Amino acid sequence: MPAKEVNPDLQKERNTATFNPREFSVLWAGGEDRFQEKKTLEKLFLEDPALQDDLPISYLSHKELYEHSLRKACIIGEKIRKLRADGEDGVDTYNALLGGSLGAAILKEGNPLALHYVMFVPTIMGQGTMDQQVEWLSKAWDCEIIGTYAQTELGHGTFLRGLETRADYDAKTQEFVINTPSLSAYKWWPGGLGHTANHAVVVAQLYTKGEFRGLAPFIVQLRDSDTHNPMPGIDIGDIGTKLGMKGVNNGYLGLKNVRVPLNNMLMKNQQVLPDGTYVAPKNSVLTYGTMMFVRCALIRDTAQSLAKASTIATRYSAVRRQSPIDPNQPEPQIMDHTTQQLKVFPQIAKAIVFKTTGDGIWNMYNVISGEIEQGNLDRLPEMHALSCCLKAICSADATAGVETCRLSCGGHGYMDCSNFPTIYGMSTAVCTYEGENTVMLLQTARYLVKVYGQALNGEKLVPTVSYINDAVNQKKFVNFDGSLESIVKAFQFVAANKTRIAYEQIELRRKQGHGTEVAANLCGTFLTAAADLHGRAFLAQTAYTELLALSRNVSPALADVLKVVLELYLVEACLNRIGDFLRFIDLTDHDVTQLEVRLENCLKRLRPNAVTLVDSFDLHDRVLDSALGAYDGNVYEHIFESTKKNPLNKEPVNGAFHKYLKPFMKAHL
Amino acid sequence: MPAKEVNPDLQKERNTATFNPREFSVLWAGGEDRFQEKKTLEKLFLEDPALQDDLPISYLSHKELYEHSLRKACIIGEKIRKLRADGEDGVDTYNALLGGSLGAAILKEGNPLALHYVMFVPTIMGQGTMDQQVEWLSKAWDCEIIGTYAQTELGHGTFLRGLETRADYDAKTQEFVINTPSLSAYKWWPGGLGHTANHAVVVAQLYTKGEFRGLAPFIVQLRDSDTHNPMPGIDIGDIGTKLGMKGVNNGYLGLKNVRVPLNNMLMKNQQVLPDGTYVAPKNSVLTYGTMMFVRCALIRDTAQSLAKASTIATRYSAVRRQSPIDPNQPEPQIMDHTTQQLKVFPQIAKAIVFKTTGDGIWNMYNVISGEIEQGNLDRLPEMHALSCCLKAICSADATAGVETCRLSCGGHGYMDCSNFPTIYGMSTAVCTYEGENTVMLLQTARYLVKVYGQALNGEKLVPTVSYINDAVNQKKFVNFDGSLESIVKAFQFVAANKTRIAYEQIELRRKQGHGTEVAANLCGTFLTAAADLHGRAFLAQTAYTELLALSRNVSPALADVLKVVLELYLVEACLNRIGDFLRFIDLTDHDVTQLEVRLENCLKRLRPNAVTLVDSFDLHDRVLDSALGAYDGNVYEHIFESTKKNPLNKEPVNGAFHKYLKPFMKAHL
Repeated sequence: MPAKEVNPDLQKERNTATFNPREFSVLWAGGEDRFQEKKTLEKLFLEDPALQDDLPISYLSHKELYEHSLRKACIIGEKIRKLRADGEDGVDTYNALLGGSLGAAILKEGNPLALHYVMFVPTIMGQGTMDQQVEWLSKAWDCEIIGTYAQTELGHGTFLRGLETRADYDAKTQEFVINTPSLSAYKWWPGGLGHTANHAVVVAQLYTKGEFRGLAPFIVQLRDSDTHNPMPGIDIGDIGTKLGMKGVNNGYLGLKNVRVPLNNMLMKNQQVLPDGTYVAPKNSVLTYGTMMFVRCALIRDTAQSLAKASTIATRYSAVRRQSPIDPNQPEPQIMDHTTQQLKVFPQIAKAIVFKTTGDGIWNMYNVISGEIEQGNLDRLPEMHALSCCLKAICSADATAGVETCRLSCGGHGYMDCSNFPTIYGMSTAVCTYEGENTVMLLQTARYLVKVYGQALNGEKLVPTVSYINDAVNQKKFVNFDGSLESIVKAFQFVAANKTRIAYEQIELRRKQGHGTEVAANLCGTFLTAAADLHGRAFLAQTAYTELLALSRNVSPALADVLKVVLELYLVEACLNRIGDFLRFIDLTDHDVTQLEVRLENCLKRLRPNAVTLVDSFDLHDRVLDSALGAYDGNVYEHIFESTKKNPLNKEPVNGAFHKYLKPFMKAHL
Repeated sequence: MPAKEVNPDLQKERNTATFNPREFSVLWAGGEDRFQEKKTLEKLFLEDPALQDDLPISYLSHKELYEHSLRKACIIGEKIRKLRADGEDGVDTYNALLGGSLGAAILKEGNPLALHYVMFVPTIMGQGTMDQQVEWLSKAWDCEIIGTYAQTELGHGTFLRGLETRADYDAKTQEFVINTPSLSAYKWWPGGLGHTANHAVVVAQLYTKGEFRGLAPFIVQLRDSDTHNPMPGIDIGDIGTKLGMKGVNNGYLGLKNVRVPLNNMLMKNQQVLPDGTYVAPKNSVLTYGTMMFVRCALIRDTAQSLAKASTIATRYSAVRRQSPIDPNQPEPQIMDHTTQQLKVFPQIAKAIVFKTTGDGIWNMYNVISGEIEQGNLDRLPEMHALSCCLKAICSADATAGVETCRLSCGGHGYMDCSNFPTIYGMSTAVCTYEGENTVMLLQTARYLVKVYGQALNGEKLVPTVSYINDAVNQKKFVNFDGSLESIVKAFQFVAANKTRIAYEQIELRRKQGHGTEVAANLCGTFLTAAADLHGRAFLAQTAYTELLALSRNVSPALADVLKVVLELYLVEACLNRIGDFLRFIDLTDHDVTQLEVRLENCLKRLRPNAVTLVDSFDLHDRVLDSALGAYDGNVYEHIFESTKKNPLNKEPVNGAFHKYLKPFMKAHL
């Protein structure tokens, strides 16, 4: 990766590391095969001259950025076509190219064709009958048609039952008539919808024989397959500029008496017969599967954001020198300031813990979804509750962590050439999409309150909430000895008590005469707090179990580093919720001070390996795309190079001087 | 302000408010005169057709945005010229136009001429001799020359002594020879430096007679006054795109043997005689004054950001309906969800408290700077310490509050037409400029640790830290009765104990053999935590004193609202630091639950007046510039209007379809 000479401060860090970064790189990639596969894909895509940017895209207008993004998206699409023709059909490959770090290296503000691959095709696979799959899938895979998935409306997001778009079945012509009856019913947000897709799966309220039947998905042609002009009755466009995901071409869609044939309703789960007879789905619970799947995948994405941000901030902190610690000494690497360590190092630890948890929950999802397909729904609510709160916590923490890393780089973090603004824009979006975070926490809390009642009745709870059984039986937490195990146990005890309080508060409101739902709303902040602690207790437990297990299977040198990471993560997590710990567990002022000293100590122990640890995330310079975070550490040179590309600097005097400034300056003379 | 019919949900809120918004608007503006003056300026500037935007600026490229910004900046400059000719010379007016909410309404990404008015001119006034002021000021006020202030370098920011740019005096020609000896010495960041200014005050390390003399300011001509071409030896340009402040034209500057006459060094405080003899400044402490001045002003700016963000979020929360509380009822205004209230209402309260504190500290600054001019420096360290931590806390809290408001608006908050991304970009910049926040907290902490030692020695401390005397004398906090007064007292007790711990930890490190400076660095996180609590205790005390004082001078209806605001602020602030409260004060689980119930109760009590309270911030629709936050509440219509302006939507089919997408889609056929 290094082209130029490496900055000596950075080289020194690498020379003095106590472990071999490649060992962790392979683990992080998921094994030697995956590591090699990653390298191959990076070569294939990142060394293609057609996929380079001469001009940083932050200098493009919104329109130029769209055109630029579509050009690259088509090149990527062509390469995917070739990979498929060569027999490559790994979902991981497509994910890496469309949403993962490789995709972000090529189209850092998103890909206008992504939803075609990750939502349109999978929806047809998941909700189409065999015949429908035969009809649509090959066209879709070959990109003869480009689709998107249109569900959210201008006036309705999370609460799906509130959607206004409706499809009325006309038995005479055997067609559905689809309408967005008001401005707030306009479909809003789907990626690629603006000017890219010519088809969409449109989710609408279904009416047959004049009766309401619930939501159903319809394939709707949006644009002429030859001219790309909008079809009759279709009002369509790009929703405009955004905080991030600027190249995605998010669109809006109004439908006015748009007719689609009977067979365009995806009918695997529910059917409409030619005469309008409606056949309801056997199992409405199946849709939970997709949502859980997506949320589990998002947890890994949050780890990736933190890995990127912490790599940039760590390398910069090794290169930047500022503010003498001892006034008689030269300015130190800012990484030697304890306050700087406290900003950056916990983000490295979180990246590792979120990745580990993401992998763990992914395995759990696979086990449980296997059980579901066998008709065993026992663990569905537990899995749903867990995926909801972890999605919320990991996305919120990752976003905050990215900003902490940016701020740790001072003014330079504020420049687009740091890449922090883009990483932030992508990262914070996860807090809102696929289930807004507060709604997610409330879903988890609803489950927790329910199982708390069961525990009070003496029922034995499922594994991920069994700590509530323990807490119900044992009111007081004893033997907090500061060991990592006791921090994990304490997290669970605290989480159980937060659920207890939410439960008791709801009961109190009910006794005051409120209905259950109103009582739950009044207690909203108690509920979200309980869900937050449930997720954090799970993260603590998983970090403890998985990282210790990992340590036993690696070299002693790497094991030592992983143990510091684990301790840093747990101690910092505990101190971040110290109010809850002190509330439910007898800890003294001295105990807290000891935890704080220990945190300082963890930072000091991680310091010598910090650079090598982020190196071992093995993020390609194109993936980081950061003047502050490049592998060679030539920070100031890279900043200056990026500045030289600024179109404003191509002329010594900007035309606006002659047009506006000179007349203004001379007006008075 | 309202042009269209007001959204009925919003109108209902206004109809049922219990107080008259105009009463608070006048208070917020600073009195009836200031209120009228504000209205006059809004009319003069915001109704000028030349200062409207047909196209939202988020659609412009970086280069287009600069040219657009310079055009408007010149129009504003011309208007300021007229105001001055008409005898208007109120600093407040210029501030409002250049940095305040009025300026943000016209140039929301900043004004490339701003630094000319707010830094270049004041520096000449503050650091130039009378002769120098005569020579430069009229040209500067008339904008015959445009200047900026160049201090920060690519490699050096906060630590000024580390600056590398140097000025060597050449007695033979009576000139200074100025150089940036390395890439990291390049001046970086000054607003307007890129392509706008033709002069700058350049701060450099002064050498005369071969000896180092410290930092000095020099007026340097950057560009030819006629052609605007860079002068010989000047390497200059725009630093590139950024997270925010996108129209400011931040620049870089390299100097190679640039010669300026002896008289271009600003010599009010220190002098160089023609033979190179150096006369040192009498009082180096005076420079603290400007920094304190700016930091005090920034506290008010943070209040303004919160006022904007909370206005947008509150109005949107009244209009948006989602997720039934009771499944048998229609979807409620989202403001009825307790979780939504907890996101938005505390930001309203913080806006009010930060504004009140900003005004209070402003008065304190004026008193103390009067004392300083009289040669009495007694309260300088206290004031410095206070301004540092308040700048850090208010900017950090405001930035977090803006993001909380944005996230409370779901996906729509992510669109640029919400204006949240711009408010965030401007707001978060304050965390870094004029003293990076962590450095600020460390400055405060250094003072706190020092006075803690004095208190241990029985010395009586100055007013803003006298609570440390109390805590030293009384080890245990008694009588926490939950009253507002006791919350304030508890905050002070907790703050004193955080300082105690920082003090003790440093002492411990010293006993372990570390020097004072190294010990302080090791304890960095203890120190910043102490400074944080000091600032929060001051905010709590000020909120309590000032808002109660205010309540006694307004109508009972408004007084009631202000008391809810105060209680909400204090209870939430306490719960946000509940870990510290539990650590030092005997509170039970039940006590905490009671505080949480009380928070819920404050939210419920503010609910009926929330919309009218933000209305009474009296922010013009142009200042808010938000489809979600307009006074008329026609959220969806405004979003749709903004989308219609999107240049991508001016053509039904984008050219990139024919160029890239169609060939890709048809390749396989």
